[in-house]
Amino acid sequence: MQAFGSSKASAARAEERPWIQAGNNRREILRPLHEDWQPSQETEAAPGSNLTWHTLQPRENRWACLGQRPAIAWFTGLSGAGKSSIANAVDRALTAQGRHTMVLDGDNLRLGLNRDLGFSPRDRAENIRRAAETARLMAETGLITIVSLISPFRAERAAARLIAGDIPFLEIFIDTPLAICEARDPKGLYDRARAGKIPDFTGISAPYEAPEAPDLTITTHGCSVADSARALIPALLGLSAPA
Amino acid sequence: MQAFGSSKASAARAEERPWIQAGNNRREILRPLHEDWQPSQETEAAPGSNLTWHTLQPRENRWACLGQRPAIAWFTGLSGAGKSSIANAVDRALTAQGRHTMVLDGDNLRLGLNRDLGFSPRDRAENIRRAAETARLMAETGLITIVSLISPFRAERAAARLIAGDIPFLEIFIDTPLAICEARDPKGLYDRARAGKIPDFTGISAPYEAPEAPDLTITTHGCSVADSARALIPALLGLSAPA
Repeated sequence: MQAFGSSKASAARAEERPWIQAGNNRREILRPLHEDWQPSQETEAAPGSNLTWHTLQPRENRWACLGQRPAIAWFTGLSGAGKSSIANAVDRALTAQGRHTMVLDGDNLRLGLNRDLGFSPRDRAENIRRAAETARLMAETGLITIVSLISPFRAERAAARLIAGDIPFLEIFIDTPLAICEARDPKGLYDRARAGKIPDFTGISAPYEAPEAPDLTITTHGCSVADSARALIPALLGLSAPA
Repeated sequence: MQAFGSSKASAARAEERPWIQAGNNRREILRPLHEDWQPSQETEAAPGSNLTWHTLQPRENRWACLGQRPAIAWFTGLSGAGKSSIANAVDRALTAQGRHTMVLDGDNLRLGLNRDLGFSPRDRAENIRRAAETARLMAETGLITIVSLISPFRAERAAARLIAGDIPFLEIFIDTPLAICEARDPKGLYDRARAGKIPDFTGISAPYEAPEAPDLTITTHGCSVADSARALIPALLGLSAPA
């Protein structure tokens, strides 16, 4: 019968675990999310801090219970490109097929988890980092997680992919030309940006770096939302099929 | 067939929606997570910002698909009280019963989502806020979410409950006396705190405000982990039973 821990943390123990030695390399520290390689240890000290990694049950238990495997679909594109509309259409289609999903929408996150962040370069990067960390946590539970964020910079999208670790990560480019986005202007933001009322607005006064090798490019001009969503749904059904 | 948005955001529209008028009251803004009261609107501008709330499919769809309803179990207690051990035992028991769960452990979050935070009062509060926001997002998907955080202050735990909104939120006091926690000292932290090497250590050099009216108090001294976990499991099975 398991008893509450009573042994002192051992520095020697960490020396036997090279991934812990990596210290600040979080991708290494994340490995203990899966305990299969570490059946006898419940916790592990992170060197150079007072933190201890608490090993959870193997994520494969959760995935088996859920009857699917996780994936992250990361939508990038200009404001007004159609990211949220497509994310919602894909989300509903997957739910209708019995798959378990969540949408992390950039604006919604900024009204909750990321409400303390502004639009400085540093805050934008942090906005993306937190979305990626949350998507990773969701994926650990087995959920298909769709992230809908302008995420204009290649380096930040690459960082999001790194945070996803070994979770399948699809970079989805919602490829709508700026002129179309500006004509749609569903939130009236382009009008305000052109009037100089919104600084650093992506596509107008701040750059958008289109993906060089997205996993999928979705066009929206002249398409219905359902048409645009169509290519991604079978891809996510395939990735999330139970092992 | 749904088309991509092309209408300009309307200030007049917001006037018809008193919950949007609340502005900074996020609990009001959160309501659009459920679209049943707003079937014809896909998005809604948040006043005083350039953000738009994107309505997702009704969370009840996700819950029905998952076959359960969500709950948040928030564990509070001293370092070494047994929070993580009990959280893991409850988590495994629920998974074995076919329920879908996640554990958000304070130390683990500090190695990921909250890795930018230290231990100043402000950072500690932010640590708790983000854990609560993440738990809320997880609960929106239908998961039973167990949060394991020292969370020493009543006000911050109350704030976490507020963020949970209408999701059932159980404050679980892991009630292990300081002397027992210090004798266990599974991470060697009390030794270091007594030696003055860790400032503001809860229970030693920083206060712990025990819950005045927890939803459940769990004792651990003289108990096995399984014994301690036993009371919470049926409570969470009941709360998460499908509607």
